[in-house]
Amino acid sequence: MDLENNRVMEEIEELSIRKRWHEIRDLLLLFEPADIAAILAELPEDRLPLVYRLLPKELAAEVFVEMDPEEQELLIQSFSDTELKEVLDELYVDDTVDLIEEMPASVVKRILRHTDPETRRSVNEILKYPEDSAGSIMTTEFVDLKRDMTVEDAIKRIRRTGVDKETINICYVTDPSRHLLGLVSIRTLLLADQDDVIEEIMETNVIAASTMEDREAVAQDLSKYDFLAMPIVDDEHRLVGIVTIDDAIDVIEEETTEDFEHMAGINPTDKPYLRAGVWETVKSRIPWLLLLMLSATFTGMVLSIFEDALAACYVLTLFIPMLMDTGGNSGNQSSVALIRSLSLGEVNFSDLPAVLWKEIRVAVTCGAVLAVCNFAKLMLIDRLLLQNSAITITVAAVICLALLCTVFCAKIVGCLMPMISDKLGLDPAVVAGPFITTIVDVLSLLIYFRFATWVLGI
Amino acid sequence: MDLENNRVMEEIEELSIRKRWHEIRDLLLLFEPADIAAILAELPEDRLPLVYRLLPKELAAEVFVEMDPEEQELLIQSFSDTELKEVLDELYVDDTVDLIEEMPASVVKRILRHTDPETRRSVNEILKYPEDSAGSIMTTEFVDLKRDMTVEDAIKRIRRTGVDKETINICYVTDPSRHLLGLVSIRTLLLADQDDVIEEIMETNVIAASTMEDREAVAQDLSKYDFLAMPIVDDEHRLVGIVTIDDAIDVIEEETTEDFEHMAGINPTDKPYLRAGVWETVKSRIPWLLLLMLSATFTGMVLSIFEDALAACYVLTLFIPMLMDTGGNSGNQSSVALIRSLSLGEVNFSDLPAVLWKEIRVAVTCGAVLAVCNFAKLMLIDRLLLQNSAITITVAAVICLALLCTVFCAKIVGCLMPMISDKLGLDPAVVAGPFITTIVDVLSLLIYFRFATWVLGI
Repeated sequence: MDLENNRVMEEIEELSIRKRWHEIRDLLLLFEPADIAAILAELPEDRLPLVYRLLPKELAAEVFVEMDPEEQELLIQSFSDTELKEVLDELYVDDTVDLIEEMPASVVKRILRHTDPETRRSVNEILKYPEDSAGSIMTTEFVDLKRDMTVEDAIKRIRRTGVDKETINICYVTDPSRHLLGLVSIRTLLLADQDDVIEEIMETNVIAASTMEDREAVAQDLSKYDFLAMPIVDDEHRLVGIVTIDDAIDVIEEETTEDFEHMAGINPTDKPYLRAGVWETVKSRIPWLLLLMLSATFTGMVLSIFEDALAACYVLTLFIPMLMDTGGNSGNQSSVALIRSLSLGEVNFSDLPAVLWKEIRVAVTCGAVLAVCNFAKLMLIDRLLLQNSAITITVAAVICLALLCTVFCAKIVGCLMPMISDKLGLDPAVVAGPFITTIVDVLSLLIYFRFATWVLGI
Repeated sequence: MDLENNRVMEEIEELSIRKRWHEIRDLLLLFEPADIAAILAELPEDRLPLVYRLLPKELAAEVFVEMDPEEQELLIQSFSDTELKEVLDELYVDDTVDLIEEMPASVVKRILRHTDPETRRSVNEILKYPEDSAGSIMTTEFVDLKRDMTVEDAIKRIRRTGVDKETINICYVTDPSRHLLGLVSIRTLLLADQDDVIEEIMETNVIAASTMEDREAVAQDLSKYDFLAMPIVDDEHRLVGIVTIDDAIDVIEEETTEDFEHMAGINPTDKPYLRAGVWETVKSRIPWLLLLMLSATFTGMVLSIFEDALAACYVLTLFIPMLMDTGGNSGNQSSVALIRSLSLGEVNFSDLPAVLWKEIRVAVTCGAVLAVCNFAKLMLIDRLLLQNSAITITVAAVICLALLCTVFCAKIVGCLMPMISDKLGLDPAVVAGPFITTIVDVLSLLIYFRFATWVLGI
């Protein structure tokens, strides 16, 4: 894509020097809106509005939606009032809402001044819903049918109003007070007889989400039920909007990226990697680094408590990193498996006994295998091959016993932390991700030195 | 969901004791196929086929598709030949392929014996494509139109054949040798005049994927372009199938789960967490734990090389975990940010200079902030408050200098490893995920002791 873009960019550069605007237009028309937006983003700021104006009206709006907020703002600044109104008229309500959420106040005012009253009402309605709610990502432009229409009436209605709807693939049946009665897909409509009545062919067991439901849960349900759109209803089961599958995918990808970032101790920014500035990136990373660095004070404290033990048996020091890392890795495996299962809805708090019982058995097995392998490695490589006489059988036993217990504790902590934080309404990825290493570090050192002082009597 | 399931289960239990089969059926009909599959999965093995048979034929097939392979096998074993044929007739080709891939050889033979010759040919065709290719997840049931049809002809054709197609929302226009000429959405068809010719209203700049393309790339493109289906073509640009959006979402979620697992050092299994047995889970986790445990030998070696330095200045030991963890966290932040950006296609190898330059500046800033904070903490808390006289200004300087360098190296390694492994065609999540800690551990210790021996002269 990027390489292709480079070639396209060069061609556009050349064409614009020779003022061959029509050829630029024809070249751009070969691409999808998302690709045109990517190409335009590479243009110098003063050239962007010029080239953007070459696009036909409808395509221009589609490209506009795909652009980053920076370029959208730049374009709006350069638009005349008529141009702005033209673009806004082509946007779906949910895209207008997205735009308004990203733009600075002065631009928002200008946008609202140029949207028609009905859209403005819808936009204001959607803006009222809390961030991350289903209401905040829905669109209010859907096809609604009445129960007593015939298929012929319905298709006529779709032909008349469909051009302004975000999707016509699923149509919703409502009563006069907009209560959701059922749905009918365009496929059912097309395959039915012209005289069939909607009431007879509609599906009545409709799964709908509430406006206040978490947007991620709604997106996951869309994916689980293979829906193309999810109807969104208010407290009185009145249909107020729909969430379409393309927006659901965006939500899923955004939330997944956030999970990745949380687990790595990064505060999510909504910009792509290369778009975020250095200072922005530093700000998203430094809080966790600082917090975790300072919390490592505890491991230092444990080490200073057992200073004498370490001095008496220096060889123990050599295995501290191995123990801490294996503990961290073990805990991490369990916590990641559970964070992911929780976010996919495969596991919930009521499964805690099953999860715990499973992790206990996995932990004992993994711990035992690792301990045995490590014992063999200590005896064969460190003692026999490398002639390290400090590694006696007792020392090896202490290390391996500590390893077994560390793996056990790490896996239990690793499965409990995500489950409990989810139950408490906290994001498992934030709580269990970065902290697991620090907690397991302290645990593994405590276990190690307890065994050492106890078995070796130091 | 699960709690609801429990209530439903109890009700079904009770109804089945009282042999109220009709009521069970009516109860199940209230749910979506995915939910019915989840409810049936909770039934005892001998009751499952009994309750399954209550479902109407078409719904039964939809529920069948949503079930786990274990239950699918159980059902097939209990089916008569006629029943098996009935279910198979209702399945889409891609679902039949999925089924065949999961079933043991004896069941596969029986399935193939009862599919009609045309489906069997399609199935065999799809099975030939490599795993993870677009060809392996496509379906061959799409609506194809001819360029010279009128809209009226086209709609008639859809009405006649649409019932067997996985989607009618997007129709494809092909020439007599099946080359892909364009596409037309059902929306365009409905909003057009009856007499319009397909050729005039179809979109001709069609983005298509090749059968051999990576399935994840195709799924990401579907999401990027907001398509409902992606046409899949062979080497000669003949249309051989389509990948629909619901299958694309499944691919994205599967691949994301794999990325999570790889990064945590887990070999992916395709079973949900609670479904995988203890031994299966152990097998997916133990290889990485073992490998990483043994690779920790290197950290032990570094520590034993600098044994004398540590003995001469014990206080240095206390900060080993802090240094190693901060290094690991820093590297992890960079590698996770890049692994995710690579998999979303936001970054590719040609961006390496930009990525490196960004990470260098981020690393220096983060490193400096951490070093200054740590210096302050050492002086104020450890030295003044806790009266640890071993922490001289020189010792603190060594620790903070080592910290700065460790963070710098960790971030550079953290961004280089995913970029380079992606370039080499390796999975960045596998390479950069688990190994980053071990590499940074060794680096941080080497840096620490180099500085210590150099500055402190020990």
